[in-house]
Amino acid sequence: VRLLTLARDLRRRRARERQGLFVAEGVRAVEAALDGGVEARGAVAGPALDVTERGRVLRARLTAANIAVLDVDERDFVSAADTDAPQGVLLVAAQPPAPARLAEHPALLAAAGDAAPGRELRVLVLDAVQDPGNAGTLLRAAAGLGAAAVVALPGTVDLWSAKVVRAGMGAHFAVPTLAASVDALAAFLRAAEVPLWGADGGGGPVARAAADAPPRLALAVGNEGAGLTAAVRALASALVAVPSTGRVESFNVAVAGSILLYELRPASLRS
Amino acid sequence: VRLLTLARDLRRRRARERQGLFVAEGVRAVEAALDGGVEARGAVAGPALDVTERGRVLRARLTAANIAVLDVDERDFVSAADTDAPQGVLLVAAQPPAPARLAEHPALLAAAGDAAPGRELRVLVLDAVQDPGNAGTLLRAAAGLGAAAVVALPGTVDLWSAKVVRAGMGAHFAVPTLAASVDALAAFLRAAEVPLWGADGGGGPVARAAADAPPRLALAVGNEGAGLTAAVRALASALVAVPSTGRVESFNVAVAGSILLYELRPASLRS
Repeated sequence: VRLLTLARDLRRRRARERQGLFVAEGVRAVEAALDGGVEARGAVAGPALDVTERGRVLRARLTAANIAVLDVDERDFVSAADTDAPQGVLLVAAQPPAPARLAEHPALLAAAGDAAPGRELRVLVLDAVQDPGNAGTLLRAAAGLGAAAVVALPGTVDLWSAKVVRAGMGAHFAVPTLAASVDALAAFLRAAEVPLWGADGGGGPVARAAADAPPRLALAVGNEGAGLTAAVRALASALVAVPSTGRVESFNVAVAGSILLYELRPASLRS
Repeated sequence: VRLLTLARDLRRRRARERQGLFVAEGVRAVEAALDGGVEARGAVAGPALDVTERGRVLRARLTAANIAVLDVDERDFVSAADTDAPQGVLLVAAQPPAPARLAEHPALLAAAGDAAPGRELRVLVLDAVQDPGNAGTLLRAAAGLGAAAVVALPGTVDLWSAKVVRAGMGAHFAVPTLAASVDALAAFLRAAEVPLWGADGGGGPVARAAADAPPRLALAVGNEGAGLTAAVRALASALVAVPSTGRVESFNVAVAGSILLYELRPASLRS
């Protein structure tokens, strides 16, 4: 029952931050977390889990991995669940340890510290992206399109909320994520000599800019309604846009960010 | 009160299809519907509407457009609302008339019937896309990236559900949408000599394929979990993929579809 109380508590961002834990909910999200090798504290199972074959396989996998499974009734499960139609399984696990400073991040150091020609670096910066689905979808795109890390600036949804974890579909365990202040980001970009480009509907066409993209590059995408913050605009050396017919006011931020990451993808993804 | 009952009823797909009506909910969605010139049957306003300046401006706009506004209390508003945190406004309006057959669709006829060299056609086909947010986001991307129409095959979420309309951010009024059977799609593609390409993680890299893309092209994207149906695969002359590091199993379908539409965009969006 202590695990159930913990899972309920972890629905609050403050509790997740204080404890360094998160909750993966649903069969796919729990599978992805296990695939990603997370350090699990335990699982909670509701009656719905054993209804499907995939659910039963997952239960066996949890048991085989020596992860304690707490069985609760439907009502208790719902009290800790994030979704309206819960699939009867959630996993409490540790967030990967966050570095104290952006520039200490091992993946970024490894990529940015290597000055070998052709060594590329892509970093995605979320500048107050608020919708959990958009943030998770961007994380997933960043992992697939070769970003070395995803940086969440203030105002961005907690990347370890259950909804972001679910939308990330395993990306949280495939690409390092870290929260940082704008000052910390600026210091890292300066020290590692990484230019920042900003996504903005008024920017130049990205296909043209991509031809001259530097090997190391950070890309910032902004809030769903307000776009990039003034502080991030001030840091950006260029603004780039996805070309549009103008028949809609803008693209969804996850779509725009993904198209930009695609157009600026590293050489290993070009063929 | 009859309008409130109607709005409640329209939360069901069957009711929307039978009556040819839909509901736009929230300030932005109602603004977009009005911008799109929809034929409105009336608006319902809750107490939340007049709290914001933008809400008051919208009320004035509804009144100026001679659209009846029914004021109801919070509880009644919530009874008809689709969202958890309703913004206090919804608009009941007519769906644009759907053609009896795919090939009668005026926009498609205009684009496909014109054999002038360089005349391009892009059609997005949703093959059992189930998530309303994904469907609306794809509609929005299709409108911005130059598609002439969006075709929803069986198994796809109703494009006129409140969640799809909201995620579309006005795209429903910028690009024609229509539901069709696979047979109807096949007949149209054959008659108009439009090849179909399918989005599939196992397909060839889209950048290479794009170099030889025909001027007229339909692109099908599949279900979030299962991908393209066998029937649509059988219709496709090529399968194309977004290149991936493989660090995630797949991309979100709205992201993948948007990147493919971007890579296959018409010449007018290249510069």
